[in-house]
Amino acid sequence: MALIVQKYGGTSVGSLERIANVAEKVIAARAAGHDLIVVVSAMTGETDRLLGLAKGIDPQPNPRELDVLLSTGEQATIALLSMALEKRGCPARSYTGAQVRILTDSAFNKARIVDIDAQRLRADLACGRVLVVAGFQGVDDAGNITTLGRGGSDTTAVALAAALKADECQIYTDVDGVYTTDPRVVPDARRLDRITYEEMLEMASLGAKVLQIRSVEFASKYNVPLRVLSSFAEGQGTLISSEEDVMEQALISGIAFNRDEAKLTVLGVPDQPGVAYRILGPIADANIEVDMIVQNVAEDSTTDFTFTVHRDDYDKALRILRETANELGAREVTGDNKIVKISLVGVGMRSHAGIASTMFQTLAAEGINIRMISTSEIKISVVVDEKYLELGVRALHAAFHLDSKK
Amino acid sequence: MALIVQKYGGTSVGSLERIANVAEKVIAARAAGHDLIVVVSAMTGETDRLLGLAKGIDPQPNPRELDVLLSTGEQATIALLSMALEKRGCPARSYTGAQVRILTDSAFNKARIVDIDAQRLRADLACGRVLVVAGFQGVDDAGNITTLGRGGSDTTAVALAAALKADECQIYTDVDGVYTTDPRVVPDARRLDRITYEEMLEMASLGAKVLQIRSVEFASKYNVPLRVLSSFAEGQGTLISSEEDVMEQALISGIAFNRDEAKLTVLGVPDQPGVAYRILGPIADANIEVDMIVQNVAEDSTTDFTFTVHRDDYDKALRILRETANELGAREVTGDNKIVKISLVGVGMRSHAGIASTMFQTLAAEGINIRMISTSEIKISVVVDEKYLELGVRALHAAFHLDSKK
Repeated sequence: MALIVQKYGGTSVGSLERIANVAEKVIAARAAGHDLIVVVSAMTGETDRLLGLAKGIDPQPNPRELDVLLSTGEQATIALLSMALEKRGCPARSYTGAQVRILTDSAFNKARIVDIDAQRLRADLACGRVLVVAGFQGVDDAGNITTLGRGGSDTTAVALAAALKADECQIYTDVDGVYTTDPRVVPDARRLDRITYEEMLEMASLGAKVLQIRSVEFASKYNVPLRVLSSFAEGQGTLISSEEDVMEQALISGIAFNRDEAKLTVLGVPDQPGVAYRILGPIADANIEVDMIVQNVAEDSTTDFTFTVHRDDYDKALRILRETANELGAREVTGDNKIVKISLVGVGMRSHAGIASTMFQTLAAEGINIRMISTSEIKISVVVDEKYLELGVRALHAAFHLDSKK
Repeated sequence: MALIVQKYGGTSVGSLERIANVAEKVIAARAAGHDLIVVVSAMTGETDRLLGLAKGIDPQPNPRELDVLLSTGEQATIALLSMALEKRGCPARSYTGAQVRILTDSAFNKARIVDIDAQRLRADLACGRVLVVAGFQGVDDAGNITTLGRGGSDTTAVALAAALKADECQIYTDVDGVYTTDPRVVPDARRLDRITYEEMLEMASLGAKVLQIRSVEFASKYNVPLRVLSSFAEGQGTLISSEEDVMEQALISGIAFNRDEAKLTVLGVPDQPGVAYRILGPIADANIEVDMIVQNVAEDSTTDFTFTVHRDDYDKALRILRETANELGAREVTGDNKIVKISLVGVGMRSHAGIASTMFQTLAAEGINIRMISTSEIKISVVVDEKYLELGVRALHAAFHLDSKK
């Protein structure tokens, strides 16, 4: 008998029929002999409906009150799912974040979990109950309701699994696992049986948005085995765990990509200490997040400095950069918002040489010009023209044999 | 400077525009120098929407979980009103029932308030904040969310006023006060400036449904001055207070009536001890509420026994009564579901004789036959044929000069 935390997202509880479906899945897992804690999100559309009400009152609603409002979404779902379980003869009890006592800091709208009081939950589990816990919400030490920010229900589930030392944390979603790449781009993309936390972090942050990044970090920190599976289809999903648990590590786990990038370059900046900060400081001050950063030394005593930002921030970043370039006496500012980033991810890279060169060779063979390169221990990212996205991803997927069982 | 508790019902907060309107009213009261606690209900229709979801899962949903679900309605309103106040520069803070700590018993769906922790509220008031409290909900000593049952927001407001020794509890609704009778029946019905708790209780229980009965009982018990006024119109409304506060007491305060009555009679019941219980016991067991009860001694050693029930329960009550009558050897069972009850209410009755005879004379002059009579200290109720309702109420309203200022 294992203790399992299951988490069902908004789509999985998006209607009364779907809530009934979740109840059946929970009961099946319980029949298999497991103790269960079930974390749920608000029904699809509910959070947006509530947000619409708030914005109707104030485009920038009071953060404390926004959390009071938004937390009602999950509270409704825990009640409905508990009713559905009770109706089927399965003892269940709902818990709001405050009732569990999921203690957070007081950063309304984006609070962080500080501690979880597992005592009452344990007592209820011992009584044979299924515990249904509201995701996304907590309470600060003054008793104010807080929320963890969008996608925070995943974090709630992982934090509960960590606090109660659960055997597995299962994240039910509308996809049946983590794939080698987006199946819409590569039809024979393959579902991964296993992947490491680190790889998942690289995949997620690069645009394969299956899980909230924070929840993966959390799972990694507390070594909680995390499984992504579908609410609507049978299957084992993808297990995300530490590297030690993965026996035969593949060279490359997957290919992530991101269409939302834009690239900015300052050419001919005097090469002096502190220049990177002088360029990126004003960008950060404008709340623009910078992704890749590359700096090359040019032939004269100047340097070329390139970075990428979200495409929505491109115009604003360009304006700021032109001012900075003037002040710095740089030669020119260029930019391109028709670029994409493609990344190979795999812990196997650490011990295998030659992966970068295979990647570059593959892209060259397709006539794809690489505009920027950036590497980390388990990832190689390249920036290419937008029009080459599909071609590049498919070529790499084939080159690294991701479509066949290894 | 006074401490005022204001309560706004579902219609008063039924849209974002109306919530904005409530915010303006609150700010005006604050500008007049008052400290304010504002109790709100769920937006119109929201409780029914949530109830619909629950019934969609289980026609008889788990009571604990139903309260978790329903309490989200008021929670959304407190957040929205607090945002609206904050946006207008008025410091405000929302409180759920659990956050105030409105401690109730554990009777889910119909909990009763046991205690209110006023400490945190007092501290917030001292900071100059308007406190926005969710009506209708509380928390039991195990931390479970409870609700007080329909209309419970009035009770929340009065209980808060009592706990914080407020100077007045103002119930904002869609009528501008308590009237001598229903203006739809008597167009020149007059708004009462003042009325006693006892009179209000008789008026409310007799069908003049402005306030929840329990909240009036509560106000009477703790001597909280209660004012009913309109959210949508200016005016002083009606003040409900103890008899001592009302200087010149009118003879009759108002005329209540109830169209939902039906009458059942057992004729020729052997007149023995315990017969009333044997007749009404099975009715009570079937969860049918009995209103008026009249028993007459007949000439032989039998008695006639008459009582009224809600019209919806008439058929069921008749079936039960026929069985009982058989067992008792009664002569006959008759019934009538085309009757209404008309009641004169006034604390002045206590010290004035002749009111009953004026009432009966007035009805007789209009050719209205009285089918049943029942009296209490401050009330005289008669049952007449349904068709005489309007005629009877208008005649009595005129006879007791309720339409003119006294």
